[in-house]
Amino acid sequence: MEELGHRISLNLLAIYRPLEMRKRRCRFCNREARLLIRQANLPLCEEHFVSWFERRVERTMRRYYMVGPGERVLVAVSGGKDSLALLCVLTILSERMGFEVVGLTLDLGIKGNSYSERSVKMARQASEELGVEHIVVSVKERYGFSLPEALKADKRPPCSLCGLMKRYAITDIAREKRFDALATGHTLDDMACFILTSYITGAVRELVRLTPVVRPGLPGLPKLIKPFYESLEEHIRAYADFKGLTYMPDGCPYASTAPSDRVRAFLDQLESVSPGMKHSLVRNYIKHIRPALHAYLKESLEPLRACSKCGMPSSGEICAFCRLRERVLQRLRR
Amino acid sequence: MEELGHRISLNLLAIYRPLEMRKRRCRFCNREARLLIRQANLPLCEEHFVSWFERRVERTMRRYYMVGPGERVLVAVSGGKDSLALLCVLTILSERMGFEVVGLTLDLGIKGNSYSERSVKMARQASEELGVEHIVVSVKERYGFSLPEALKADKRPPCSLCGLMKRYAITDIAREKRFDALATGHTLDDMACFILTSYITGAVRELVRLTPVVRPGLPGLPKLIKPFYESLEEHIRAYADFKGLTYMPDGCPYASTAPSDRVRAFLDQLESVSPGMKHSLVRNYIKHIRPALHAYLKESLEPLRACSKCGMPSSGEICAFCRLRERVLQRLRR
Repeated sequence: MEELGHRISLNLLAIYRPLEMRKRRCRFCNREARLLIRQANLPLCEEHFVSWFERRVERTMRRYYMVGPGERVLVAVSGGKDSLALLCVLTILSERMGFEVVGLTLDLGIKGNSYSERSVKMARQASEELGVEHIVVSVKERYGFSLPEALKADKRPPCSLCGLMKRYAITDIAREKRFDALATGHTLDDMACFILTSYITGAVRELVRLTPVVRPGLPGLPKLIKPFYESLEEHIRAYADFKGLTYMPDGCPYASTAPSDRVRAFLDQLESVSPGMKHSLVRNYIKHIRPALHAYLKESLEPLRACSKCGMPSSGEICAFCRLRERVLQRLRR
Repeated sequence: MEELGHRISLNLLAIYRPLEMRKRRCRFCNREARLLIRQANLPLCEEHFVSWFERRVERTMRRYYMVGPGERVLVAVSGGKDSLALLCVLTILSERMGFEVVGLTLDLGIKGNSYSERSVKMARQASEELGVEHIVVSVKERYGFSLPEALKADKRPPCSLCGLMKRYAITDIAREKRFDALATGHTLDDMACFILTSYITGAVRELVRLTPVVRPGLPGLPKLIKPFYESLEEHIRAYADFKGLTYMPDGCPYASTAPSDRVRAFLDQLESVSPGMKHSLVRNYIKHIRPALHAYLKESLEPLRACSKCGMPSSGEICAFCRLRERVLQRLRR
């Protein structure tokens, strides 16, 4: 895997391909190209890449009817490249498409290397530069416990617990503040990885829920939208760099090698020899496999109900977050 | 890709792992282990590997009701390791399970490096050693043209034309000789590759036809069975080696790099870090995705009909083979 990791990071470094690009000219203005959109063999300069990228996200949002005019969109901003790029592109598209954008950053209370503090700082700085309203919510203040405290009380892997807390908190806050939509920075790479992993493991009930827009199953909840559903991480990174955004480096103090990392590395390799492969995998899932699975599983899928404690969507009587919260608070009281 | 190919062949060479195995003992008899069944972490000596492998194929055949007692099975034998191993294991299982086995080898007329001649010779030699009846059919004699002649008259890639000719000829011969089943050496690796490629390309109508047993859609035709549906190529190769079979090396004079080779190489790598992954991908296709796709597509799948020239299954008025044949014979007459 070391060898693999090495090759992939070389690959990422190579995306601005100074050598290869020096010979190529932007398709639109004949200036020196900075980046090659490989699946379209399209060399672009910085300026035309930025507008290509923004138009592409706009197309995704229109194709899946993500946001209507006048709607209010809460953007989950972790401080990483994907979410800062999302905040940036949505701010630009909000003018064109007539919706409203607010950023939200959770302070999870991760102390290692001042991780949470730095994340919040980068998100706040980017929001200021973009002129976007930005909310910071400390999970410790809101729910009584931080992520590190949850990790001590629960044996689940860090990424799984963190995901549960973040998903719950951002939905809860969007609901409280009556947002129409909640936008997350999930990328085409994330989608491809989740889909292939589900094909391998057979987690079809989780797979069938994966759509570009998840309409709320209960009243008062925001729809969940993924504007980067068709955008590659390498393009998102380039966009963030060209826009001069300062973002947190990938990886958090709790991150270890997740099993999905292997699938992700293999997909990266496959994409590098067959550009467009990830998009094809995801598009064909949405076009063919998902409708079939949905029709087949429809009757056996459990309807979501409201958690009897907090009213948020839950598959059981009490939602997973409320169960976690009770366990952690009990431990903290001791 | 060179680097990849290199790593994979090292991987294949390493399957008998003399060094690693020297320290390990067979789980069943405590003799020195020759092979590790990685998904089960099961070290086995040569003898116990052979019986493990045969039981596994028997389990696959019983699980999918491939052959009933008293039935006659025609085995397509190309002379490669997969088909010779198939002939060998089916001969052994035929006694236990009470069916009859006959081998069939097509002489495709490939002259390069005496390829077809050598294939026929190896298949005949193995059949003699196994004491199995063996039929050799020259496609040139039966249909009036060889594979090289077809390649000159048609622009399709060699593997595609060869597949069309072989599929047609073996089914046609099995029908004529009234066999109940036609067995091919398709492996778990082939299945995983086809499934993943179809997920990527969206070829769901082809995908939905992929099952361990294909029951004939028209009367008088054999069912098509794949006894190696759950067997890895690396195990098939070891079985062929341990049984002392002499087989054709992989690759034919016409073979070039097919797009599926990349997917295959990536699956090999993924399997080597996550043993059991290919089986999981295939099993979950059969268990979840295929039933959903089948129910969803059922009404839109075109029913097979009999070709108006030869009576074999066809999606149109005249089957693809008859259309090819006419074109090739026309060219040869000129």
